Amino acid sequence: MMQKKNSSPTMKDVALEAGVALGTVSKVINGLPVGESYRIRVEEAIRKLDYHVNSYAQGLKASKTYTVALLIPNTSNPFFAQLVYHINMALLKRRYRMLLCTTDYDSQLEQEYIMIAEQNKVDGIIGLTYNPKLCIEENIPFVSIDRPMGSHIPCVASDNFAGGQMAAEKLADLGCRHAAFLRVGSSLYSEPNKRKAGFENGCLAKGLAYDVKILNDGAPLSEFEDFFREHMKNGTLEFDGLFCVTDFLAVNMVKMLSRLDLQVPKDVQIIGFDGVRAFGDGDYFCSTIVQPVPDIAEMCVELLLTENMHTKPPLVYLPVSYAWGGTTKEGLQSY
Amino acid sequence: MMQKKNSSPTMKDVALEAGVALGTVSKVINGLPVGESYRIRVEEAIRKLDYHVNSYAQGLKASKTYTVALLIPNTSNPFFAQLVYHINMALLKRRYRMLLCTTDYDSQLEQEYIMIAEQNKVDGIIGLTYNPKLCIEENIPFVSIDRPMGSHIPCVASDNFAGGQMAAEKLADLGCRHAAFLRVGSSLYSEPNKRKAGFENGCLAKGLAYDVKILNDGAPLSEFEDFFREHMKNGTLEFDGLFCVTDFLAVNMVKMLSRLDLQVPKDVQIIGFDGVRAFGDGDYFCSTIVQPVPDIAEMCVELLLTENMHTKPPLVYLPVSYAWGGTTKEGLQSY
Repeated sequence: MMQKKNSSPTMKDVALEAGVALGTVSKVINGLPVGESYRIRVEEAIRKLDYHVNSYAQGLKASKTYTVALLIPNTSNPFFAQLVYHINMALLKRRYRMLLCTTDYDSQLEQEYIMIAEQNKVDGIIGLTYNPKLCIEENIPFVSIDRPMGSHIPCVASDNFAGGQMAAEKLADLGCRHAAFLRVGSSLYSEPNKRKAGFENGCLAKGLAYDVKILNDGAPLSEFEDFFREHMKNGTLEFDGLFCVTDFLAVNMVKMLSRLDLQVPKDVQIIGFDGVRAFGDGDYFCSTIVQPVPDIAEMCVELLLTENMHTKPPLVYLPVSYAWGGTTKEGLQSY
Repeated sequence: MMQKKNSSPTMKDVALEAGVALGTVSKVINGLPVGESYRIRVEEAIRKLDYHVNSYAQGLKASKTYTVALLIPNTSNPFFAQLVYHINMALLKRRYRMLLCTTDYDSQLEQEYIMIAEQNKVDGIIGLTYNPKLCIEENIPFVSIDRPMGSHIPCVASDNFAGGQMAAEKLADLGCRHAAFLRVGSSLYSEPNKRKAGFENGCLAKGLAYDVKILNDGAPLSEFEDFFREHMKNGTLEFDGLFCVTDFLAVNMVKMLSRLDLQVPKDVQIIGFDGVRAFGDGDYFCSTIVQPVPDIAEMCVELLLTENMHTKPPLVYLPVSYAWGGTTKEGLQSY
C-alpha cells in the first residue's frame, strides 16, 4: 500500500518538464497569477515528478506559511459545520491550508488558540468568537464572522436586518395577524442581534401586530411555554406566526406547541433563521431565512488574503433568502 | 480592541517567573510529562509574560511541528462533523494543532492533501479516505478511519459487525417476522461493509427471515421503491423491519414508505446506523446503532501520537450502542 519516494526533484526539473521558465514555476507555487495553460502544465509537471516544495524553509524565507487558522466554537452545530467546509474549500482553491481551532465557546481557549496560531506564524486568522476582549497581534490579518471587533478588523455577516424584515413580511403575506419574535442566546453585541430590529421594521411596514419575548442567556426554553400559556385563551394562541432567532429554536417551538395541542403550520406558522438542513444537504428543518454560507466563506477568505488593499471594508453584509421547510402554509398542498 | 505586544520574553524569563528550572519550561513547551503543579505554574508564567515559542524554528530543529493533518470528505455530513470536532479536541488536549483537509470524496484531492501535509512536515495524518491507491510516505505516521490500508497503518472503526447483529436482534425482539437489509454507497472494501454480515448473523441466530437489497454506487434511491412494490401484496409490505446502512438512508426510507401509505413504526420498524442527531446534540433522526465518535477520535489521536510503540494494532474496533429514535415500537408510549 505504501510507496517509497524517489530522490527529490528541484524546481528546475519542474520547469524543464513543463517547458516553462523557472519564474513561471515559482509563480504557480506561490499562487501568483499566470496564464491558465501555464498553470496546468506546471501543476502536471509537479504531479508527474512528485515535486515537493519545502514549505518550512519557504515559510522562514518568505515569512509566508500559506496557512490560515479558523476559530469556531465547534463543528457539531450544522451552521458552523457548513462554514468550516466552505472556508476549507475556499482556501484550498488558493492552495492554502487551514488550521482548525474549535473553541467550545471558551474565551480562554479562543485566546490560547490565537497565541498558538501566532506562534505557528499563520498568514491570517478567521474567527467566529464570543470573547469581546480578544487580544490579536496587529500584524496578523484577522477577519471576523458575525461580530464587529473594531474598524481595523473586517467583519462578514449575513444581512440579518434584511432577514428579520423578510420573515415579518413573509408571515404577513401568509395571512398572519399577530406575530411574535422569540430569541435566546448570547446578549453580546453581534450582527445576529439585528434580526429583531429587522423583524420589527417589517411588522410595522406590513401593519402586522407583534410581541417580543427574549430569554436571558442560559434560561430554560420552558420559559417560552409560560409565555405561550399567558397568551392563550380557550385553547387558542394569540399568535398565529412566530419568527425564531434560529432554526434550532424554531424546531423546539414546533415540539412545544404540539404539546400545547397547537398544530404547525395550521394554527401557528413558524419561520427560523440559518437555513440548516438535515444531513447537511437534506431537508430544511423548518421554513427559514437561509444564510449564504458559501458566499460568507468566500468573502472571508478573499478579505483575509487580498494584500495591498488600501482600506478593507469594516463590515460586509451578504444577502439572505427565504426557503420553505414545512412550518409555513404556502407549501401545504404538498403535504 | 487590539493591543500591542511588548518585546519578546525568553524561555529564561518564563523559568524565572514560574520559579522552576529551564528544563521544566522546555518540557512543558514540548508536551513532555512534568508534575501537574509545575505545568500549571509554567503555563501561568507563559500567559502572564505572553511568551511565544518560535514554533517554526522549533519545527526545523526538533523535526516536530505539533501539527496533525485530518483528511475527511467534508464537515457537512453530521457524522464527519462530529469526528472533526472530537479529533480537534483530542489534539488540543495534547497541545497539538490540526490541519483540516476536506476532500469532497475526490481521490486526486486526497493525494494532493497528503503531499501538502507532507510538505508542511506534519507529525502525522489521520484519514477517512476513499482512494485505495493512496501513496503515503513511510516516515509519516498515518492512522486510518473505517478502511484498512495495510498492516503498517492502524485502522480505527466502530464494531460494525456487532452493530449489524445488534440491529437484527433488536428487530427480532421488537416482534419483527421478516426483515430486510438496505444498502447503498461505495463498494470499496471498508469496515462499514461488515454491517451486512453482522445483520445476517443476528437474523440467523434469532430465526428472523430476511432479504437483502444492495444498490450500486450512484443508483437512485427510487430503486428501493421498486423493491418495496415487488414485495407488497394488498397494500401490505412483506417486511415489517428494515435495517438501513446509514441514518440518512433510514430517514429517506421513512419518507418513501409514507408515500406508499405505510406507517413507521406501526407497519414497518426501521433501524439506521451512525447515531447522528439533529443540530449536533438534538434528537436522533431515527432509531439507530450509535457509533462511539468521541472514543474513535481519542483512539485515532492516541495511536497516532504514541511514540516507541513496538507494534501498533492494525485494526481497533470500538463498541457501538443502540438508541431509540422514534422509528421502532418500544418507545411508542411516549409518542
